[in-house]
Amino acid sequence: MQIKKLNTQDSNFKDQLSQLIFFEAEENTQIEKTVAEILSDVKKRGDQAVIEYTKKFDHVDFSRMEEFEISKEELNLALKSLPQKSREALEEAAKRVFDYHNKQLMSSWSYTEDDQTLLGQKVTSLDRVGLYVPGGKAAYPSSVLMNAIPAKVAGVKEIIMVVPSPHGERNQLVLAAAALVKVDRVFAIGGAQAIGALAYGTQTIPQVDKIVGPGNAYVAEAKRRVFGVVGIDMVAGPSEILIIADEKSNPDWIAMDLFSQAEHDELAQSILISPSESFLNQVQESIDKLIETMPRKKIIETSLTNRGAMIKVKTLEEAAEISNFISPEHLELSVDDPDSLVNNIKHAGAIFMGRNTCEAVGDYCAGPNHVLPTSRTARFSSPLGVYDFQKRSSLIKLSNQGAHKLGKIASVLAHGEGLQAHAKSAEYRIDNE
Amino acid sequence: MQIKKLNTQDSNFKDQLSQLIFFEAEENTQIEKTVAEILSDVKKRGDQAVIEYTKKFDHVDFSRMEEFEISKEELNLALKSLPQKSREALEEAAKRVFDYHNKQLMSSWSYTEDDQTLLGQKVTSLDRVGLYVPGGKAAYPSSVLMNAIPAKVAGVKEIIMVVPSPHGERNQLVLAAAALVKVDRVFAIGGAQAIGALAYGTQTIPQVDKIVGPGNAYVAEAKRRVFGVVGIDMVAGPSEILIIADEKSNPDWIAMDLFSQAEHDELAQSILISPSESFLNQVQESIDKLIETMPRKKIIETSLTNRGAMIKVKTLEEAAEISNFISPEHLELSVDDPDSLVNNIKHAGAIFMGRNTCEAVGDYCAGPNHVLPTSRTARFSSPLGVYDFQKRSSLIKLSNQGAHKLGKIASVLAHGEGLQAHAKSAEYRIDNE
Repeated sequence: MQIKKLNTQDSNFKDQLSQLIFFEAEENTQIEKTVAEILSDVKKRGDQAVIEYTKKFDHVDFSRMEEFEISKEELNLALKSLPQKSREALEEAAKRVFDYHNKQLMSSWSYTEDDQTLLGQKVTSLDRVGLYVPGGKAAYPSSVLMNAIPAKVAGVKEIIMVVPSPHGERNQLVLAAAALVKVDRVFAIGGAQAIGALAYGTQTIPQVDKIVGPGNAYVAEAKRRVFGVVGIDMVAGPSEILIIADEKSNPDWIAMDLFSQAEHDELAQSILISPSESFLNQVQESIDKLIETMPRKKIIETSLTNRGAMIKVKTLEEAAEISNFISPEHLELSVDDPDSLVNNIKHAGAIFMGRNTCEAVGDYCAGPNHVLPTSRTARFSSPLGVYDFQKRSSLIKLSNQGAHKLGKIASVLAHGEGLQAHAKSAEYRIDNE
Repeated sequence: MQIKKLNTQDSNFKDQLSQLIFFEAEENTQIEKTVAEILSDVKKRGDQAVIEYTKKFDHVDFSRMEEFEISKEELNLALKSLPQKSREALEEAAKRVFDYHNKQLMSSWSYTEDDQTLLGQKVTSLDRVGLYVPGGKAAYPSSVLMNAIPAKVAGVKEIIMVVPSPHGERNQLVLAAAALVKVDRVFAIGGAQAIGALAYGTQTIPQVDKIVGPGNAYVAEAKRRVFGVVGIDMVAGPSEILIIADEKSNPDWIAMDLFSQAEHDELAQSILISPSESFLNQVQESIDKLIETMPRKKIIETSLTNRGAMIKVKTLEEAAEISNFISPEHLELSVDDPDSLVNNIKHAGAIFMGRNTCEAVGDYCAGPNHVLPTSRTARFSSPLGVYDFQKRSSLIKLSNQGAHKLGKIASVLAHGEGLQAHAKSAEYRIDNE
């Protein structure tokens, strides 16, 4: 397998880099149209529409919405049926994710000025959240943990999970994870119709305030459309890893780290940057050697051949610059002094520091969230966190003196903008002592 | 003028309330199509496309993009030309907005576990932000302050402002505000073409990481479409105020507070809730008396008649419940003990506590932001703040011991999900002591 090789010394390096990382979900007007119709139908007809679309797309033929609800008993049975080792691993992972996210909890604050005017910010949690879990091959119990735990920590009162069960097959690992983190209600529905049900509410499914979780192109488009009616987390692109490694790293380890991203799907992107040409060659050798041992060999090969790359740089500082341009979802710093190099990093979803720290541990159990900004969106967005399930209200409480002083300023500015009622409303409070 | 009257004791109160607050921006496929075309054209042809659309929509006929850039000199001249009183008011407002937003600044944190594994969160600012300022009657200098200052406090290195100048007319107040808060570059362009230029970058206008600021239906649709390529703040609906007032409030003040929201535009919504029927009647009288003094009488009348309402409740607690359902953008608590009532409030953009505190002061100079969630989105979103211009990267640095312990857990979970490269990548780090 031959991985693309780039070198920052090449005259057209910047163009090559842009081409490499360029990814744009194609605009698909057919998907847009279909999703718009499904959403409007679910909004209008509620349960009945969801039932019909689920019969059509998932081949599950129930006549009442209640039949799609998965009972507490079924969830708990799934958890009890887990092999002991899996259950312990899942519990330990959940505990660590809880611990980390607890540190993100925001609190209300306020301060009082000299004239007793109080200003502040009141922090509250969202009331009810919808959690979308994909069906089929991309249904991961770890995703249930990573999406539900921050909501729980924030204090969200009710989490409604939806997960499609094509042909009625229910993913037991996903149900076990839902039981473990105490998701409140679970419905075996999916697709744009499930997003519509959560966003607008139906006779059976209560309207939520925000929808989180990954999904296919239809789910992504549906989330984009209902944004505003409810909050959404983000519309994720293919997963990516960028590894900055020096020549002292173990080439087998780095090759496997590149595989671990590539095995997700054919569009996933793995990029390795190193100042050492010989190290890059060693990793290429490790790739050729290790690929034969991989059950998901085909996916890995397609991903690495089409979207993977190795980039030779002059220095680690240059590597950091390129990383900042790429703004990767996952960034491994497999170098002697990651504490120093991390100071040069500006944009990245999660940073894995040191040779010991592989992305896979972060995906499951280190503690931080594995829902991360993809496709260069780390330039402006953040990992999913407790803050996504909290919100803030500004607090303003003026003293007599404050109303007097600020009323005068507001009056001048309001008149300047031609808003006389604003001005008068402020003026009423002047001289009210 | 007759304002709608509702009473929680009416049998169909809930339906009436839902009807009252229901607002949905109509889906306009013509706008969607036009905007999609403009964006794709700007993406493809850059400056030349922006120049042509600006000629067509704003009737400004420049041949080079540079001619649309407003020089530092022109900005500073606008600031110098302000009347002394206006300048002082603007400066004092800016200072207070700076002070409040400084308290929102997030810092990086990390902690070390017993085995020396480090977990944390690195906080950085966005690099470059685009600020959209509408032209025409809704061009407010206060909006420039409220959008630019949180970005400045966050440490954003470059703010690019766009503001249309139909027929070449440049709003001097807006330019003065831009000079005051040291916006880096200003272009006299607007509409979907300006959003496209900021989102994709052109030969002259650099690509930004996030676009904030209000705009008309075309601008809103354009922001919705470029979301993902860049971040956006929110897609705002009509402005709203909800006032909870007891019978000891001054009916003239409350009437004027209702006007101050209604004067924004015909779709703005002003709602008053009180346990006192006689107080509601007094406010109705004040409205009829004071409306005659209002230069924006027509807008206020249309807004109050079509979208305004008074709601009679049994208790202040019931008022808070209704407020939580409405989740208003602005909430005034004109009561004896606002500190106690505020505990019952869960969803609101900004809360104005006590009879002294009118919304207008918050709009201009109290300190908190005036960009607030509308149309019930306070259920899941927050005022614009410094946190909108900062982002977080997770930090994970495993000790040998940590890699050993967590590698085992990750291995079990990865095998459970059928991701063998994930498992192997973690296993390599086990027993590496």
